[in-house]
Amino acid sequence: MKHRFDPTVYHTTLGSHAPVLRLADGDTLLTRTVDARGVDYRGEQVAGAPNPQTGPFYIEEALPGDTLAVYLERLEPNRTHGWSNAALMPNVMDPAYVREAPERMLSDWHIDLERGTATLITPETHLGRWALPVRTMLGCFGVAPVDGQAISAATSGQHGGNMDYRGFRPGVVAYFPIFMEGALFFLGDGHALQADGEILGAGIDISMDVQVTFKVLKGWSIRWPRGEDERFIFTVGNARPLDQALQHATTEMLRWLQTDYGLDAYGAHILLGHTVVYEVGNVIDPAFTMVCKVPKEALPARV
Amino acid sequence: MKHRFDPTVYHTTLGSHAPVLRLADGDTLLTRTVDARGVDYRGEQVAGAPNPQTGPFYIEEALPGDTLAVYLERLEPNRTHGWSNAALMPNVMDPAYVREAPERMLSDWHIDLERGTATLITPETHLGRWALPVRTMLGCFGVAPVDGQAISAATSGQHGGNMDYRGFRPGVVAYFPIFMEGALFFLGDGHALQADGEILGAGIDISMDVQVTFKVLKGWSIRWPRGEDERFIFTVGNARPLDQALQHATTEMLRWLQTDYGLDAYGAHILLGHTVVYEVGNVIDPAFTMVCKVPKEALPARV
Amino acid sequence: MKHRFDPTVYHTTLGSHAPVLRLADGDTLLTRTVDARGVDYRGEQVAGAPNPQTGPFYIEEALPGDTLAVYLERLEPNRTHGWSNAALMPNVMDPAYVREAPERMLSDWHIDLERGTATLITPETHLGRWALPVRTMLGCFGVAPVDGQAISAATSGQHGGNMDYRGFRPGVVAYFPIFMEGALFFLGDGHALQADGEILGAGIDISMDVQVTFKVLKGWSIRWPRGEDERFIFTVGNARPLDQALQHATTEMLRWLQTDYGLDAYGAHILLGHTVVYEVGNVIDPAFTMVCKVPKEALPARV
Amino acid sequence: MKHRFDPTVYHTTLGSHAPVLRLADGDTLLTRTVDARGVDYRGEQVAGAPNPQTGPFYIEEALPGDTLAVYLERLEPNRTHGWSNAALMPNVMDPAYVREAPERMLSDWHIDLERGTATLITPETHLGRWALPVRTMLGCFGVAPVDGQAISAATSGQHGGNMDYRGFRPGVVAYFPIFMEGALFFLGDGHALQADGEILGAGIDISMDVQVTFKVLKGWSIRWPRGEDERFIFTVGNARPLDQALQHATTEMLRWLQTDYGLDAYGAHILLGHTVVYEVGNVIDPAFTMVCKVPKEALPARV
Repeated sequence: MKHRFDPTVYHTTLGSHAPVLRLADGDTLLTRTVDARGVDYRGEQVAGAPNPQTGPFYIEEALPGDTLAVYLERLEPNRTHGWSNAALMPNVMDPAYVREAPERMLSDWHIDLERGTATLITPETHLGRWALPVRTMLGCFGVAPVDGQAISAATSGQHGGNMDYRGFRPGVVAYFPIFMEGALFFLGDGHALQADGEILGAGIDISMDVQVTFKVLKGWSIRWPRGEDERFIFTVGNARPLDQALQHATTEMLRWLQTDYGLDAYGAHILLGHTVVYEVGNVIDPAFTMVCKVPKEALPARV
Repeated sequence: MKHRFDPTVYHTTLGSHAPVLRLADGDTLLTRTVDARGVDYRGEQVAGAPNPQTGPFYIEEALPGDTLAVYLERLEPNRTHGWSNAALMPNVMDPAYVREAPERMLSDWHIDLERGTATLITPETHLGRWALPVRTMLGCFGVAPVDGQAISAATSGQHGGNMDYRGFRPGVVAYFPIFMEGALFFLGDGHALQADGEILGAGIDISMDVQVTFKVLKGWSIRWPRGEDERFIFTVGNARPLDQALQHATTEMLRWLQTDYGLDAYGAHILLGHTVVYEVGNVIDPAFTMVCKVPKEALPARV
Repeated sequence: MKHRFDPTVYHTTLGSHAPVLRLADGDTLLTRTVDARGVDYRGEQVAGAPNPQTGPFYIEEALPGDTLAVYLERLEPNRTHGWSNAALMPNVMDPAYVREAPERMLSDWHIDLERGTATLITPETHLGRWALPVRTMLGCFGVAPVDGQAISAATSGQHGGNMDYRGFRPGVVAYFPIFMEGALFFLGDGHALQADGEILGAGIDISMDVQVTFKVLKGWSIRWPRGEDERFIFTVGNARPLDQALQHATTEMLRWLQTDYGLDAYGAHILLGHTVVYEVGNVIDPAFTMVCKVPKEALPARV
Repeated sequence: MKHRFDPTVYHTTLGSHAPVLRLADGDTLLTRTVDARGVDYRGEQVAGAPNPQTGPFYIEEALPGDTLAVYLERLEPNRTHGWSNAALMPNVMDPAYVREAPERMLSDWHIDLERGTATLITPETHLGRWALPVRTMLGCFGVAPVDGQAISAATSGQHGGNMDYRGFRPGVVAYFPIFMEGALFFLGDGHALQADGEILGAGIDISMDVQVTFKVLKGWSIRWPRGEDERFIFTVGNARPLDQALQHATTEMLRWLQTDYGLDAYGAHILLGHTVVYEVGNVIDPAFTMVCKVPKEALPARV
């Protein structure tokens, strides 16, 4: 069943808040997200920073210990104005270089959906009217965290949240561990495009029309967000420093390979060790995001 | 001019050791490397761990402040037996998971150069006789470090060394800052293939026939290793933790964009921020390696 | 005014929960805490892990932007049985050494308040009936975090929480930034003693009788927990890795010295740089705690 | 036997350089060190940065696998001018705060040995002519590293080096693992005083008269520097980030407790866990230094 939902309230935390809508396992949701600072498709400020979330959506049958599969079917900017920052976050540069970097200030971008381009409007730089292809993604989404916590949409954890990983794009399935009854799914912080690390402190941030479909995977228990696309399965670790995020993602993948792909321990280690691809989600939020990917062509059949 | 050099001595440090050969700017070197534990193309143990290096090669005209360009033209296993490890290094897993992982032990691989495959021989696992395509690369190479230091071939730094980055493959140009007269170039630790992070503590390690050509870039001064291939320019940071390696690589790229591509500071930050790709070289050696890449198609013309 | 409060509900998150009691600025609270696993003074399990908190206490006049001073006047175990762990947490050892360490298991301690000793009961080790002096402290306490968040009592942040710093002992004043109206103060996780880092994953954990007095410091705005004792003022950073916790604490101290002690920037840097003492609070919780201390004898008069 | 040695050459690396003097096991050395930038007791520049070392001293009977005990008997400034820096190193502050900090510049101090004071001369700050008690220590000392390496005196490792730990003061015994025949001991970088972390990038740096006595501990094998004073035994980890330095030091102490104090594994973990004191050596050099201390009063008799 398809539900259209027009949000009127937004949350800056992912927590066990009152559901805005109940959906059944297998249902599809069409809704809107505002940008990271709360501006909507009409250019109106309707919520406050950081990363105001649409939701939460209560998914029937979803119980702690299950997994929520979220099919990202459509992520489409619903206005033409996007924004970003014009200088890198200080923590991604050598500490002694920080003073040499320019001061941080916003940049403006024009999104042309028909041509599929994002064009730099301000500031004036030697790049001129520089254009990049639009590659939409969702920066912050996930479920209510364990134990009734309400965690800021500025950061991320085992429940998902502000992972700012460019791999969460249309065509991808994201999996979240379910900690609270109904899962309580949130979404927001769409980007017209974003490179690795979100090192400007923003992608090209914009409001969006979003379509997702939910599936509850009963009895499939995971500890960290996972996902898959046409070519890869992947696991997501959220922590500081990057080393620890990488440990979480790597350990989660070792578990996945042994649980679902019929591999013994040495088989899982060898397969992962010789095929792994790591991607940096974000390296500027309170928790960094490291993604551990394995190509599907290297995997044995799922058992 | 083309030089064939058959090594008889090997070094386990990169330092200001006596040159084994002098080459002119523009010369090509054909030589051999032994594997990471010192076994050569005949299967004979001719040197000791770690990563015994062929060299150093003195490049004429190379002076401190210049840069050495190394064209990786040919990296070819010169025997059929490769080895690796069958279990991940403990530091890439969650500390509480380390006890659940299998004990580390070596694995054996058969390299078939004609078919271009590496096939797992031991241990016995559910993977069976699992085969992967050969993708050769050089794990440890670089120049003599600053100030007369002699640094173990187990680790890396601004001089290069044991970066274990799979992007150092045939067709790539690597750039090293020159710290000592003659540059004093070393090379070793070839891998038939290696995934991101070298998380098994080895690639598929093997001895190799290598062909490289040297160019001295007078007056082009860099601080960290750089490189380029068909599609990307890249910078390399070597340090712990990954965050700091990323800071080094990112800062070096900001410098490159402003020095050579005619970009003002905001232009460089914006270009890098919206196009950067990070790759994990190794995440298990004493210094980790993070690579910061920019696609050439996004770059303005070089000035 | 003195309030006695006997808790009946406990929270495993610090958040904007319904206050259990309202106190005026200057009031004193006598209450009880249960141990980190929810066992009370009678040995009864009355709450669940982690670190169930007594509270929250609403302090009148406390508004966002003010600071809450908490005078730790009495922290006294109210039973004789304490517990800890008998093996270090894996993350404080070299990753390659983790397998050599013994498996984690609980230890039991007998607390004799009259003699002021804690005596090891189990497990049997070469230490025998080893005794240490009791030095009570509070492991987890603080206020409701910013933006309506509810954050697990297992971790810490700018609002305090599970800092596990042995310097929070009787005679100390702790300062917390106030984020929510009424401050909403929580406390729990008393330790009969704990060394630096809480590297066993516990101190000697026990239920306690606690007496604290509250003062609202109107218009004194801080970003991280602070404190003072007879000899030192100190600031507290909570983050991973230790480096970042140290950055937070150091930056907060630079602010304090310039705001309240009449120092120019160079004066503050020089004073801090030549007198600082760092202490490790915990190095095993989701956020580590680093404390930055300056001896009072080195300080100019407060302005 | 007592040797007086007046240095004429200095090394900026610790490596297998030609010994300047040979001493027997048990001999005492009286010599001089220059300051971190190579200025000697007469105020003359006699060597270049960083941390030029006096030595190396060849200790007879010292073989790889043994340990070198160095008794720090006298560390005395031999001139009245000391220097430091007036602003913290950028890496110890929050990245976003770095721009708010003043620019780094040198400070000058007057050392009055009779009164035992160091007095700030420049820059002018609100501190005025601020005076601190002299507490001398040695910033950089150690032995030739493993495998013939020559490692910059700017950094540290298992061989010691630039640890910048204020606990290396008169009355202390330092222990170093011996990697090369003769141990090859180096020393330099004296500080009239230094607080935790060396966060200004310097202590109060000065040239010194030094007296040390050497003992070779045959067959006592250690992996990291250790030491002891009147009240504590301690181990030293050198690495980045602080977390890893702490892992090295903690693991080394676990080994020590089990090898020399007759403790079983649980006994060692419990004793360490409930008594450990951590101190930050430096948190600004290429490798950070974390010290793990155990009070002697808590130790069983040495076996």
